[in-house]
Amino acid sequence: MNLPRRVKMVEVGPRDGLQNEVSVIPPAVKIDFIDRLSATGLTAIEAASFVAPQAVPQMADGAAVLAGIKRRPGVVYSALVPNRRGLEAAMVAGVEEVALFAAASESFSQHNINCSIDGSFVRFAEVAPLALARGVRLRGYVSCVAGCPYEGAITPEKVAEVTRRLFDLGCYEISLGDTIGVGTPRQIEQLIQLVATQVPLERLAVHFHDTYGQALANILAALQAGIAVVDSSVAGLGGCPYAPGASGNVASEDVLYLLNGLGIDTGVDQDLLIAAGHFICEYLHRPTGSKVARALAGRCVAV
Amino acid sequence: MNLPRRVKMVEVGPRDGLQNEVSVIPPAVKIDFIDRLSATGLTAIEAASFVAPQAVPQMADGAAVLAGIKRRPGVVYSALVPNRRGLEAAMVAGVEEVALFAAASESFSQHNINCSIDGSFVRFAEVAPLALARGVRLRGYVSCVAGCPYEGAITPEKVAEVTRRLFDLGCYEISLGDTIGVGTPRQIEQLIQLVATQVPLERLAVHFHDTYGQALANILAALQAGIAVVDSSVAGLGGCPYAPGASGNVASEDVLYLLNGLGIDTGVDQDLLIAAGHFICEYLHRPTGSKVARALAGRCVAV
Repeated sequence: MNLPRRVKMVEVGPRDGLQNEVSVIPPAVKIDFIDRLSATGLTAIEAASFVAPQAVPQMADGAAVLAGIKRRPGVVYSALVPNRRGLEAAMVAGVEEVALFAAASESFSQHNINCSIDGSFVRFAEVAPLALARGVRLRGYVSCVAGCPYEGAITPEKVAEVTRRLFDLGCYEISLGDTIGVGTPRQIEQLIQLVATQVPLERLAVHFHDTYGQALANILAALQAGIAVVDSSVAGLGGCPYAPGASGNVASEDVLYLLNGLGIDTGVDQDLLIAAGHFICEYLHRPTGSKVARALAGRCVAV
Repeated sequence: MNLPRRVKMVEVGPRDGLQNEVSVIPPAVKIDFIDRLSATGLTAIEAASFVAPQAVPQMADGAAVLAGIKRRPGVVYSALVPNRRGLEAAMVAGVEEVALFAAASESFSQHNINCSIDGSFVRFAEVAPLALARGVRLRGYVSCVAGCPYEGAITPEKVAEVTRRLFDLGCYEISLGDTIGVGTPRQIEQLIQLVATQVPLERLAVHFHDTYGQALANILAALQAGIAVVDSSVAGLGGCPYAPGASGNVASEDVLYLLNGLGIDTGVDQDLLIAAGHFICEYLHRPTGSKVARALAGRCVAV
């Protein structure tokens, strides 16, 4: 089994996760949560989003959150920005990295960010040079890479095209998102092989949802295809808005267990990660979405 | 990705699954359940167990269940037997296949079947020739292949040895069980490679628990290692007795979704399988353990 020796885990719980939870969380709790995550050894944390507060009230406190966290050296705290206004707010808040969110599906782009794929790139073309000129790194997301909740199948060619456009804008890393969790391992392998003809493999990350239980199998396939950056959400935060009651983001604890078992170095401490997940689940009064956390409940250390 | 073209799914829900559920189910419900499963296209169903009824009251009705089901041509209904007495009862009930249950861990063997590994083989040595002489097929199980809840690590050499002993007794198929779900894909790959030096690969099956969320990734690794027989339990029936609240058997619906996605033929109908899972979960007043069933809830056909 051919696998990378080291994997970067990108923790998306505080942004992508919490944004899809029902509760709105006060900034002090988010700050505590993010500080617990940065203490685990994680080096990449998606911490906030600078989108219109009327659209996403859960994320209206991005500036307060970024001002309050204890910035740990070696950890990159990123924020999602949809446009120039978001970028400016994010830069005022001192982010070192912003994320641009594109879709491989026209209908999803319309439903999710209210513009066509081309329209989203018009905004990104304004944002990207401004960010890069200020030394802010760009990370790209492509959603619906394995299927779309509105239009079904999405061609790998379309995914490759959108990924390439984000790369050409200057994104140092582009995360391929199976937004509805419908993908299976061979499909993911073939997708990565095709996208890698357009963008260097080492610039790609994967972002899988566990809606159909396939996320870890898909991550295994991605690792075998040469991917070494994996997004995940502690405690599986963030349900699936397209299938109420179903799982969304794959749980970071379960990804870490997989990577540890494969002998892949991440630098992340399992007990501290589980404890961070317990902390936020307790606050949300929600059971953890991590099977590892459930199996080890009572055994992990308190922090 | 090198994968088998066809996989036999072995459904263990009615026996291994229900045995580990809290409720005791009347035989009429089990019969209905098994008949729904055989209508899905499944060709192997573990239907009953002939163990001491005081030890496992959930399974005391094996004879009634086997007498009541509609035997569908091409479907093998099997029963677990621990000893000669169990075998005789199973043969009276007309089973075509019996399962022998061995452990790769001495402590698990003691705790689970109250004798040493060698002691269990003394019983099997009595059962096996009797069964074979009557044309009853033997299937072997090896538990704790990736770890034991009492003694921790189990060497692959021990697993290979126990598997070989079952093979030498005449088992046409031996299922390697990760009883506590702790295994990860590289470990599983290496285990299968080692066991296959002792027993032909085409005689091996895998039986994974999803306690740590690793089951589908482990199944993918097993398929890549050449395994073409996979045990699973519809709706994920059968919790984990060693971690209350945690998952046990991997859900058949999720396995089928994986296999379908990989383009592997099983002959099993997804909608009918999901419906069979809904039927038993409704009876048990228990949420399904299948993520696929949850994601598709409301979309699957009623039967």
